Amino acid sequence: MTAPHRPVTPDRVTVLGTGLVGTSVALALRRHGVRVGLVDRDPDAVRLAVHMGAGEPLAGRAGPADLVVIAVPPAAVAETLRAAQQARLGLYYTDVASVKATIIADARELGCDLSRFVPGHPMAGGHQSGPAAARADLFEGRPWVLCPTDATEGTATRVVADTVALSGALVCLVDAHQHDRAVAVSSHAPHVVASALAALFAGPDALALRLAGRGVLDSTRIAAGNTTLWTQILTRNSAAVAEALIAVADDVRAVAEVLRALADQSDPDLSVVRALLERGNRGREFLTNGAHQPA
Amino acid sequence: MTAPHRPVTPDRVTVLGTGLVGTSVALALRRHGVRVGLVDRDPDAVRLAVHMGAGEPLAGRAGPADLVVIAVPPAAVAETLRAAQQARLGLYYTDVASVKATIIADARELGCDLSRFVPGHPMAGGHQSGPAAARADLFEGRPWVLCPTDATEGTATRVVADTVALSGALVCLVDAHQHDRAVAVSSHAPHVVASALAALFAGPDALALRLAGRGVLDSTRIAAGNTTLWTQILTRNSAAVAEALIAVADDVRAVAEVLRALADQSDPDLSVVRALLERGNRGREFLTNGAHQPA
Repeated sequence: MTAPHRPVTPDRVTVLGTGLVGTSVALALRRHGVRVGLVDRDPDAVRLAVHMGAGEPLAGRAGPADLVVIAVPPAAVAETLRAAQQARLGLYYTDVASVKATIIADARELGCDLSRFVPGHPMAGGHQSGPAAARADLFEGRPWVLCPTDATEGTATRVVADTVALSGALVCLVDAHQHDRAVAVSSHAPHVVASALAALFAGPDALALRLAGRGVLDSTRIAAGNTTLWTQILTRNSAAVAEALIAVADDVRAVAEVLRALADQSDPDLSVVRALLERGNRGREFLTNGAHQPA
Repeated sequence: MTAPHRPVTPDRVTVLGTGLVGTSVALALRRHGVRVGLVDRDPDAVRLAVHMGAGEPLAGRAGPADLVVIAVPPAAVAETLRAAQQARLGLYYTDVASVKATIIADARELGCDLSRFVPGHPMAGGHQSGPAAARADLFEGRPWVLCPTDATEGTATRVVADTVALSGALVCLVDAHQHDRAVAVSSHAPHVVASALAALFAGPDALALRLAGRGVLDSTRIAAGNTTLWTQILTRNSAAVAEALIAVADDVRAVAEVLRALADQSDPDLSVVRALLERGNRGREFLTNGAHQPA
């Protein structure tokens, strides 16, 4: 029998990128007395995060932190990890990007030390961005996925898991490719579909806008996301997102063809329409019962 | 100069169908002292509506009401109108179905008196149904479309407009075909798209469910609708819904093809992805600024 695992609270954490997620991580750790050093290429973002109580600007000669949290856009993660490891900013490293396999491949290609890097993805965020929207309880009760690779040291995973658990998140260990396929369905494909739906309103149809109700407002909410960030996400999870999108496009087109045939006075098989609505009912039921539930 | 129009409050209104919308209309009219007679093929639904203060069961020898509100599913509207006119239930008639042109055509075909019928559609509802979910303020500030035809008497339109205005709704006069095209975009196509998105979760992908967040929950909320009712709606607005769905399916597929090519190591035109996200941003902006605003 081994002794039960005793979680370790780190002494010092450095957060690279004080946007919504980075600043929220910092605020969550500050509640537990962790000393947090903050870095952002935008000095105003650091100042605001400091003002909110997220920590202090990283001091030049602070020495390596216990953990470095890389909270920059997906396209910048691998290069940021490389530079941070070269500068010996920390003992261990994690990131928060919503794609994992391509970031691991990029980091390997750049020669990063993968033994000290635990790729991560907290399933939280929101439609706002920037440090001003940050909250210490952003991750409370939400899944926080960690995707250690074959190269990852056990200690690295333990340090990162213990640290992110301080945020109140549920730490889930998932294979990077499994993670990417799951978020393609649960987040990335829905973003594209919501955009295509919202695009129906990008033209001058004033009456459709006037008659829009809560239904379509809810259905298109996520279409308001940052296009640069989302292009990075979609292109870094391309195979899995493409697969989910093709399933949606095929279903939508199949119903459209039946309705068009009906409008043309033919006698199409209406069961196609009903079958999709029923699958939608079932998926929605699974979603409302299954989403966010702790294991 | 004509004198300004003085709205008339009807003395008696009969509501056929005491579901969510019918009972809410009745409750709204009761606030203004209108006497409301209630009819439903389900006696429990009438009893509940009466208990909620929506009116009284329609008495056998009440004589014609000032207005009959037909609040039954789209497939039953024309036949209900025909039967109600044969039984002389009212002086004027309106309905609340979310499709208009096919209902007018059906009513014409059944030999209804179109001069006394003002087709209508209150843009309110919700994800609940049945009298228990009814509210006197359901229509407050929402558009209520009326689609008088060439055959409609001016007095009929005036009586219906004055009566539905008592609910606090904004009465909008719109051509039936224009209405149908607008709601295809603002309501009917989104329902199918949300269903196709929710259908991604109808299979056994437990991890995708576990990682689902508020974004996809919002995007799929309307997929929970009644499939019988929605099959009636979609098949009765088939041409306009098909057109909107094909636009969405084409956009989704175009992005999917680019992402698939990228995954296959080709060098596709990524501007397709960014362009859709940008159109989505713009449509979403129009939606949040334009939806529900009074003229």
